[in-house]
Amino acid sequence: MGNTIVTFGEVIMRLSPQGNRVMKQSHEMEFFFGGTELNVASSLATMGCSVRYVSSVSEDFVGESAVSFIKSFGIDTQFITQNEHPLGLYFLEAGSSVRAGRIAYNRLNGSFANIQPGDVDWKKALKGCRYFHWTGISPGISEAAYETLKEGLKTAQEMGIYITTDPAYRSNLWKYGKRGEEILKELVSYSTLFIGGVNEINEILGTQFSSDKKGFIEACKELKQQIPSIQKVFDKIRIGITASTQQTQGRALVRDNYFETELLEVSPVIDRIGTGDAFAAGLIYGLMNFDDEKALKFANAACAIKHTIPGDINYCSAEDILELMNGSSGGRIKR
Amino acid sequence: MGNTIVTFGEVIMRLSPQGNRVMKQSHEMEFFFGGTELNVASSLATMGCSVRYVSSVSEDFVGESAVSFIKSFGIDTQFITQNEHPLGLYFLEAGSSVRAGRIAYNRLNGSFANIQPGDVDWKKALKGCRYFHWTGISPGISEAAYETLKEGLKTAQEMGIYITTDPAYRSNLWKYGKRGEEILKELVSYSTLFIGGVNEINEILGTQFSSDKKGFIEACKELKQQIPSIQKVFDKIRIGITASTQQTQGRALVRDNYFETELLEVSPVIDRIGTGDAFAAGLIYGLMNFDDEKALKFANAACAIKHTIPGDINYCSAEDILELMNGSSGGRIKR
Amino acid sequence: MGNTIVTFGEVIMRLSPQGNRVMKQSHEMEFFFGGTELNVASSLATMGCSVRYVSSVSEDFVGESAVSFIKSFGIDTQFITQNEHPLGLYFLEAGSSVRAGRIAYNRLNGSFANIQPGDVDWKKALKGCRYFHWTGISPGISEAAYETLKEGLKTAQEMGIYITTDPAYRSNLWKYGKRGEEILKELVSYSTLFIGGVNEINEILGTQFSSDKKGFIEACKELKQQIPSIQKVFDKIRIGITASTQQTQGRALVRDNYFETELLEVSPVIDRIGTGDAFAAGLIYGLMNFDDEKALKFANAACAIKHTIPGDINYCSAEDILELMNGSSGGRIKR
Amino acid sequence: MGNTIVTFGEVIMRLSPQGNRVMKQSHEMEFFFGGTELNVASSLATMGCSVRYVSSVSEDFVGESAVSFIKSFGIDTQFITQNEHPLGLYFLEAGSSVRAGRIAYNRLNGSFANIQPGDVDWKKALKGCRYFHWTGISPGISEAAYETLKEGLKTAQEMGIYITTDPAYRSNLWKYGKRGEEILKELVSYSTLFIGGVNEINEILGTQFSSDKKGFIEACKELKQQIPSIQKVFDKIRIGITASTQQTQGRALVRDNYFETELLEVSPVIDRIGTGDAFAAGLIYGLMNFDDEKALKFANAACAIKHTIPGDINYCSAEDILELMNGSSGGRIKR
Amino acid sequence: MGNTIVTFGEVIMRLSPQGNRVMKQSHEMEFFFGGTELNVASSLATMGCSVRYVSSVSEDFVGESAVSFIKSFGIDTQFITQNEHPLGLYFLEAGSSVRAGRIAYNRLNGSFANIQPGDVDWKKALKGCRYFHWTGISPGISEAAYETLKEGLKTAQEMGIYITTDPAYRSNLWKYGKRGEEILKELVSYSTLFIGGVNEINEILGTQFSSDKKGFIEACKELKQQIPSIQKVFDKIRIGITASTQQTQGRALVRDNYFETELLEVSPVIDRIGTGDAFAAGLIYGLMNFDDEKALKFANAACAIKHTIPGDINYCSAEDILELMNGSSGGRIKR
Amino acid sequence: MGNTIVTFGEVIMRLSPQGNRVMKQSHEMEFFFGGTELNVASSLATMGCSVRYVSSVSEDFVGESAVSFIKSFGIDTQFITQNEHPLGLYFLEAGSSVRAGRIAYNRLNGSFANIQPGDVDWKKALKGCRYFHWTGISPGISEAAYETLKEGLKTAQEMGIYITTDPAYRSNLWKYGKRGEEILKELVSYSTLFIGGVNEINEILGTQFSSDKKGFIEACKELKQQIPSIQKVFDKIRIGITASTQQTQGRALVRDNYFETELLEVSPVIDRIGTGDAFAAGLIYGLMNFDDEKALKFANAACAIKHTIPGDINYCSAEDILELMNGSSGGRIKR
Repeated sequence: MGNTIVTFGEVIMRLSPQGNRVMKQSHEMEFFFGGTELNVASSLATMGCSVRYVSSVSEDFVGESAVSFIKSFGIDTQFITQNEHPLGLYFLEAGSSVRAGRIAYNRLNGSFANIQPGDVDWKKALKGCRYFHWTGISPGISEAAYETLKEGLKTAQEMGIYITTDPAYRSNLWKYGKRGEEILKELVSYSTLFIGGVNEINEILGTQFSSDKKGFIEACKELKQQIPSIQKVFDKIRIGITASTQQTQGRALVRDNYFETELLEVSPVIDRIGTGDAFAAGLIYGLMNFDDEKALKFANAACAIKHTIPGDINYCSAEDILELMNGSSGGRIKR
Repeated sequence: MGNTIVTFGEVIMRLSPQGNRVMKQSHEMEFFFGGTELNVASSLATMGCSVRYVSSVSEDFVGESAVSFIKSFGIDTQFITQNEHPLGLYFLEAGSSVRAGRIAYNRLNGSFANIQPGDVDWKKALKGCRYFHWTGISPGISEAAYETLKEGLKTAQEMGIYITTDPAYRSNLWKYGKRGEEILKELVSYSTLFIGGVNEINEILGTQFSSDKKGFIEACKELKQQIPSIQKVFDKIRIGITASTQQTQGRALVRDNYFETELLEVSPVIDRIGTGDAFAAGLIYGLMNFDDEKALKFANAACAIKHTIPGDINYCSAEDILELMNGSSGGRIKR
Repeated sequence: MGNTIVTFGEVIMRLSPQGNRVMKQSHEMEFFFGGTELNVASSLATMGCSVRYVSSVSEDFVGESAVSFIKSFGIDTQFITQNEHPLGLYFLEAGSSVRAGRIAYNRLNGSFANIQPGDVDWKKALKGCRYFHWTGISPGISEAAYETLKEGLKTAQEMGIYITTDPAYRSNLWKYGKRGEEILKELVSYSTLFIGGVNEINEILGTQFSSDKKGFIEACKELKQQIPSIQKVFDKIRIGITASTQQTQGRALVRDNYFETELLEVSPVIDRIGTGDAFAAGLIYGLMNFDDEKALKFANAACAIKHTIPGDINYCSAEDILELMNGSSGGRIKR
Repeated sequence: MGNTIVTFGEVIMRLSPQGNRVMKQSHEMEFFFGGTELNVASSLATMGCSVRYVSSVSEDFVGESAVSFIKSFGIDTQFITQNEHPLGLYFLEAGSSVRAGRIAYNRLNGSFANIQPGDVDWKKALKGCRYFHWTGISPGISEAAYETLKEGLKTAQEMGIYITTDPAYRSNLWKYGKRGEEILKELVSYSTLFIGGVNEINEILGTQFSSDKKGFIEACKELKQQIPSIQKVFDKIRIGITASTQQTQGRALVRDNYFETELLEVSPVIDRIGTGDAFAAGLIYGLMNFDDEKALKFANAACAIKHTIPGDINYCSAEDILELMNGSSGGRIKR
Repeated sequence: MGNTIVTFGEVIMRLSPQGNRVMKQSHEMEFFFGGTELNVASSLATMGCSVRYVSSVSEDFVGESAVSFIKSFGIDTQFITQNEHPLGLYFLEAGSSVRAGRIAYNRLNGSFANIQPGDVDWKKALKGCRYFHWTGISPGISEAAYETLKEGLKTAQEMGIYITTDPAYRSNLWKYGKRGEEILKELVSYSTLFIGGVNEINEILGTQFSSDKKGFIEACKELKQQIPSIQKVFDKIRIGITASTQQTQGRALVRDNYFETELLEVSPVIDRIGTGDAFAAGLIYGLMNFDDEKALKFANAACAIKHTIPGDINYCSAEDILELMNGSSGGRIKR
Repeated sequence: MGNTIVTFGEVIMRLSPQGNRVMKQSHEMEFFFGGTELNVASSLATMGCSVRYVSSVSEDFVGESAVSFIKSFGIDTQFITQNEHPLGLYFLEAGSSVRAGRIAYNRLNGSFANIQPGDVDWKKALKGCRYFHWTGISPGISEAAYETLKEGLKTAQEMGIYITTDPAYRSNLWKYGKRGEEILKELVSYSTLFIGGVNEINEILGTQFSSDKKGFIEACKELKQQIPSIQKVFDKIRIGITASTQQTQGRALVRDNYFETELLEVSPVIDRIGTGDAFAAGLIYGLMNFDDEKALKFANAACAIKHTIPGDINYCSAEDILELMNGSSGGRIKR
């Protein structure tokens, strides 16, 4: 078995007015490529990991630009296919202080939504891989995406690949007639590492655990009971004081061992999007390099530092993250 | 009967890298709202006409921004509806000199494609109107758009409104199972003023007239014979020397009278898109204010001067256009 | 009586270096149209009200751009006249943290300063209106503006329109030979709703009340005694911790009933200008839809949220403002 | 006598939407400081001359920024005063190809218009100077500016300073009740070098000479007869093919000797404004360094090359101009 | 033998004021990574070739950004080393029309200048390669770069790799004490394909052939006689009408067969830099896919179309280039 | 003796991606000219002092732009020489909150590093000067810079000029073979005013005083004992809470008198660079105008307010700084 991490998901373009403007005030927009699984992939590649990314993009210059961007991280893009549908995208009006940000999506008929199970030769795509990371976004986009993902998970399971999941449930997806809870439960059953917390567990299991420490521990236990493949649960807590001030904290239950990190505060927040993905990438990197507790601290620091980077992706190196984890406050310029 | 001009069509957002860059080189894009019928509407409003615009936009901040933009021209927007589908959009890599521009669309599942015939109360929407302008783009987007348009044309015909058409056939549309030629022929039959030339006639009638003067005259005669509602044919000829140098010329057949304008050259071209719409708006304005020949000259000048304006819309006043028509070369600053 | 709100005042262009630069460091400037009464008008229109705006702008492309901007809100612009004088403008170097912002004006010989009483047909301009909002800026610009406003107030009073005022006294105005205090007192006498506090009352009455709660109540009582038309006094308190952190609070005296809101803090401040106008618009909207206390809370939330929007105008919807009023901190993105 | 060149006039700020946009399409503007006499001053300083500039600016951060800009050329700014009036400015919508540019002014009540004759101690301001250059713009702005200039010219004449003039008559000035023709004639009588042609002569003398070579020669002779102080007439001919293509040519009559330069074409034009001032500066530099014919050729090359520089000012060195004058076409990069 | 093309040279950052401004007028600069051999590499990668690039960059975030950029083309970067010296860079003030562009270099003590022969394991770096392309820039930068290149050429020759050269002689290099002519002659002796013309031959051989067709043929023959390894000579002629209008033409001597292409004109020129590299890449691509004459035509079209792309690199696909080669003028948008 | 302050050091260009982006995400960079001694010079000039600056820049358009920038402050630039080496520069990725900023330098082979002792005629350059300010950066760049500086200090001492120093030790300098500590100790011996604290003293003397008040006092006494020329020690304490929140405080030992200022906090920080130089300039200005304690308070306020200005240089006037010193929090706009 190789050491490559593979992720599968939608490349999505973000379009955003500049400088706190709302769209009505704007004539130009910044754009960034991202997507929850791509964010994990690119963050891992930035930290030096071998990474492969499986997706489907539009067969036009927009899709080509996305692939060029992904290549810039040294990510293996040979399993990205193209089809005639447009690349998914969303518009973001960033929030500030007491004004919340807003997102408008255009993704449900895009190139990823139209990926077909046969488009990916999973045997080849998973060759040499050690981790397969997936999230709850992909199966919510279309039935075809769900089927394609399930095929990948089956194959990965057969090949003995370690499957990690961030089973985010997003209510503005799941428009194609399936119930998200059921499908997520099915797909989580292929997974070993669960990156999520009480909300996600309640959604998948239909339970109503509270979000405090006690509730978290009980929820994790219930999850492991119902889905025995799950070995570890790592959760990120992000507390939005305002749109400009956020706090992050990690907690985990590994076997019956609960541990948590200190709270990190970021102010001002430059960009909130992709901070959960930075956590997931930090965690996978951490688990490959450190023990569980240090991995959680590393993941939390990765999550926090991502709030200072524009766009979806955490451009910080493992060294940058370690410095924050070890107490550096960012107050001195590195010359 | 009032004096209002109504147009019906899709609001489409254009996204474009700045300053001759290709998308791979870019991190930000300018955006403009446009759409062939909106371009006609806004140009007419800029020239001082009373204008109404019927469409359907997304019920998010993108759609709201589009409506706000349309209002800025003083256009009546009360018949614009909203639905849950995203606003149509396209990406443009502008060309330059020997490099042609490129467009990638994302419109076939948008808010306009999902307009429903029942969404527009055409009786009200056409009240007080003198002209109804439509183009061949709208019925090519979706069957629903086609049906909605047809309903509008029927109502307009019953109300005695003068119907003008730019029956542009675009091969990258018409994906919903209907043959464009047939539908365009059906819809053109409601119209009185045909803004198009040999290409459009050949497409609609399945003929093979040549594009020279003789072919144009014969094609017009054949069109009038097959579709007797057509009273006048006005055609714009745009000659693309390079992406940066373009020539425009107008010709027309009104009854059996052929006339044409001189050739105008624009170099450098700032923006090619919407030049045909500037012609159509110039023509409608011209026919409301001048005789047929002067209307054609005015339309050709409007078409030429639009090449110097960024975005889809001709921001020039009637006075600006008249100056060009009367020989001003743009060489002196107006203080 | 209709439901339209009319405001009268100067459209003023703001020019500002970008990104915290001072002007000496800058080669380009953002510009925004605003003006205290226009800010109220556009905020009300954004919240869905029917709004008319009376002003005079330059008869050049600057004035035309201003009108186009005003139209984009759906505001009725038919009573905006044009004259040969330039549009008023100001330069803003935005402050940051311990550095205060700076403004340099160019407005005293502009198109609004040169409006003439006869330019506005107030009978028509006030037809169908329920509220007439004016501020102390307009009469300070020129005698002609003062006379024009007075004529409007008289007509409004005769027509039974509810007159609201934000009698801001600005010491860098009143250069034309009249004493601001006297004129403001005269004009306030036409008004029913007084949006201001101890400072404004002291200036108008020549009193010296303190700015604490007791002083506020006494000042309001004195005001109502001297100017019996005043029924309600609503005051916004803005506490500038630094240029980047501001607090806002509302208080009011209605009949003998004193009430106040909680303090809202905004950090970082994106733009301070127009926050008082956001308060006034929020108050008028609130009084049209809620009881007095809820109206004050709504106005205070509108004032706070405006600090997060670039430019003079509050682009937030009533729903956005209600969310903040009801405790949302802006910490979550709306998807 | 020293070698310094002094100019007197208005610093005016230009504000212009970027990238061919019209103002209605724009949210930001580039700005440049300029003004016809400042353009001459800064071009001469760039070529290495000792230059002094006399003016009056606003006593705010706008005026300070202007002075800082002027200092960046090494120009002596000690005779620039400040007053409470705003700095003059204008808005420019740049033209392109067949669309002419447009200017809207805001200068008639600015800081320069309010300069007072007593503000300048001309004896000191002219000390050490060899040339005093003035133009027809300054006396057209206000009576105060006219009086201040006249005082300067008288003093210069007494001190034996060589007076050069570009007596541009601009019809959108002269609003203060004086006839421009008369005043220009009066002021030209102090001058030795006349930089202008048939148009200017006709305006000043009320004659109707034709603009061909013959007319030019006759006009010059008539000018010298009526105003004997004039020793030399140098004229720039700028032919505006379109807003994007311009041609320039110089011609002169010195004593009875007529000579002219070849025609230079610039395409695309980056900026037309200040090209006449580049000619004037080139001419003064040329007359200080070359014979009359070479000076004219140098001035014409300076005029042509200015069309390639954004803003009002010619940033090219004497060496750059000489290269063009000697036939370099700009086709090779200088490494 | 594989099919990979390897190039070796300096990554150099270009910094350039935007929008025709000169540096004194500017506060921000665009930057692009390029370098003559990288330009060839990235153009070939864009056309779908397998490409490897050997270089040395700075071990800071500047160098990392450069490598990330190179990866975005899918170029193999594993043989790029890092050292403590800064990345080379240059400033460009782009020219326009009659004003020539200007470059200021900062490269002679950079990371590439400090590459050491031992830094590259040429055996590995050349494994699987079919072409090794080098230029005369690299050995001119430093003795270390020259030695490293020579080692590479020796190894390539031993491995039977086809060596192509663009032996550009640049007089602002060669500061380290060697005579460029001698070294270039030595290095050209390893090469088979000579991409250059009369100027380059005269410089290397010390001859004085004329640049007309006859001179070109004689020069090529002399070159082949003195350096028998050279099999083919392909030359690009670039005629700079002005900084904004350029013409390109190709000519070649293969065995005794002379052939040339038609002249292509580009106006306006967006960017001149890298057009020779686009020619070289087009030629190598052409020789891999077409016969010699078609390869030359393809190379000339690649050279021409590059003039329309900002930055150093030709982002056009082989299909785009073929269209221009086959007569498309760029006048129509591709939808 | 005149009143001019002279500083000597390197002009260095800063290049920085905009808007919190890291370089990999960026296509354009802002640039600023600065350099620790230039920052002091320009800040003093902005406060109205007579200032001269001695340096050496590149003899290309980059160096010319730098000189033009320096002139814009009214600084005397006649002793700035030019040589063929490139201007020094650095890249800055600005930090934010918990992410520290990063700098990459390119200065060690630049025009200042290659200044030669003979290049400056110190007798002339110091004529009329009252203060000579130098820092520990300059002698760390190259031996030539060290020798040139030493010559200047000797001459200044002979001429009785008051020498002030900010002996910053920067570990990424001093690559040319000398030990920084020794040289700094030697050069400090020429100085009277020491602007630095425990760190600097420990580095120069090889001591290990603690940084608390007691340590500071002891360190100062030791310094005065070992280097008796030192009369006063003024220290700035900058506490980096995060990259976005900084605190500053001043303390001093004059004779045996210790005093300190209150702590000022700046949040958000716009730019940290040059804040120490703002302190130094504020101190020199303060010592010229106030007593020692007020000078320290003024210096601390200058240091704090600089954090709100982009770029290296403090554009605030003495009046702005006094307002902050006297308790203004920046919370009100100055109109």
